[in-house]
Amino acid sequence: MRQPCDLKRLSLNQITTERWSLREAVEGCARADIPWIALWRHKVAAAGLAESRRIVRDAGLKVSSLCRGGMFPAATADERQARLDDNRRAVEEAAELGAEVLVLVCGPAPDRDIDSARRWVAEGIEKLVPYAQSHGVKLGIEPLHPMYAAERSVVVSLAQANALAEPHSADQVGVVVDVFHVWWDPDLYRQIAQASGRIVGFHVSDWIVPTQDLLMGRGMMGDGVIEISRIRESVEAAGYRGPIEVEIFNQAIWDAPGDEVLALMKQRFPEYV
Amino acid sequence: MRQPCDLKRLSLNQITTERWSLREAVEGCARADIPWIALWRHKVAAAGLAESRRIVRDAGLKVSSLCRGGMFPAATADERQARLDDNRRAVEEAAELGAEVLVLVCGPAPDRDIDSARRWVAEGIEKLVPYAQSHGVKLGIEPLHPMYAAERSVVVSLAQANALAEPHSADQVGVVVDVFHVWWDPDLYRQIAQASGRIVGFHVSDWIVPTQDLLMGRGMMGDGVIEISRIRESVEAAGYRGPIEVEIFNQAIWDAPGDEVLALMKQRFPEYV
Repeated sequence: MRQPCDLKRLSLNQITTERWSLREAVEGCARADIPWIALWRHKVAAAGLAESRRIVRDAGLKVSSLCRGGMFPAATADERQARLDDNRRAVEEAAELGAEVLVLVCGPAPDRDIDSARRWVAEGIEKLVPYAQSHGVKLGIEPLHPMYAAERSVVVSLAQANALAEPHSADQVGVVVDVFHVWWDPDLYRQIAQASGRIVGFHVSDWIVPTQDLLMGRGMMGDGVIEISRIRESVEAAGYRGPIEVEIFNQAIWDAPGDEVLALMKQRFPEYV
Repeated sequence: MRQPCDLKRLSLNQITTERWSLREAVEGCARADIPWIALWRHKVAAAGLAESRRIVRDAGLKVSSLCRGGMFPAATADERQARLDDNRRAVEEAAELGAEVLVLVCGPAPDRDIDSARRWVAEGIEKLVPYAQSHGVKLGIEPLHPMYAAERSVVVSLAQANALAEPHSADQVGVVVDVFHVWWDPDLYRQIAQASGRIVGFHVSDWIVPTQDLLMGRGMMGDGVIEISRIRESVEAAGYRGPIEVEIFNQAIWDAPGDEVLALMKQRFPEYV
């Protein structure tokens, strides 16, 4: 008999209520008694960094993560340096917001050479670590589903994220497990165990069948085929007890009133997570 | 300096000219001097099995593969038996057509239980082998891209296909490498080497950016980001020198006149494969 997941761990990843501003998302969480929120940089930028921090703190919310750093590979050394500079700004923002972790979406290859892109990711992380450390910000490498390999991330499996994290201190570089990105992996449960002590974030949604769209095809927990609670339990067995973000790219959910989305999240969370 | 690939290895996977009947596809290959064709069962059924065989032989074409067997997992034992029976018919058809290999697209889970589905795949292959052997037909396990895990195949990586093939004789059960399905895999080149002596098919197309559609987003070789010739060379180093199928699901290509598609294939093949 599985243990239902405590609502105290529930975090709204604000992309799930994409039409809401940062203030609206924070106020929605406060109304719904959701204790955590994950912020996106473009929403923070729209509200202003200092103001974002004030809004979140005044509402008594905790910030589970800031989305996102990464995007390390680029065709030229100058452009890679620019990406690194942007990552340093993301670290500063995460520190200012009191985010538990800066999520890294590592980026695609600028051309057909995926091996070089993967090396640039490793180099980018290595260069970013000291800055993140000096700001008290953890980096969380999030492997994305292989269908995003060409456009968003050459890091496509938990095995790969583990290998990228491994040279660094577990206090400083960890991995983020998102069920949508990793559920298909035959090696998943072994790699979750391998990530023991390194898991710094856990994201939930569902894989809808039939899948209509690469980006916008995610669903609410329970509407798809992912063994979410099995994955959650294995992530817990690997030592992660922190916030659980609901992160859903789905036009119907984006079009629904935010308060209804949060109510549905709260209903589905103990049932399917 | 890479060696351009010999056009004698070119095979039209007939789904690439989806609007053509089997007869039209065969005649198209003959006009274009393409020596190989891969047939699909629904096209064979539409033309009739004996008539399909006659059409192909009269044109002097060789059949690189029959698509497809597989789809082993199902919710009940009766339904799994029905799938196995259908696979036996596919074996008979492959034998009748003189196909080099029956391609196995292994099927999705009927529910959320992906582990059981994977066991049913292994069991289905095990049960099919003696029948295939008695008909002189090789089975080719084709790992599909993980984005099809919920709807088409719980076999999502070459590592997994290799593990499924391994208990069986290399003369009887092999793997099919399709660049579209495997290009993202950080373990690809190691797994191709691991498949040495087991590769029974090689399929090419390309991954287009931006990717518009899960099923219909494939492109003509050269139009996307896959390192096709690098993969081809590693497949050759692993001992495969057989036909190379061009298999493209793409509405614009399907809508184009078949002869133009074949001409473009012939142009791109030495350049990008």
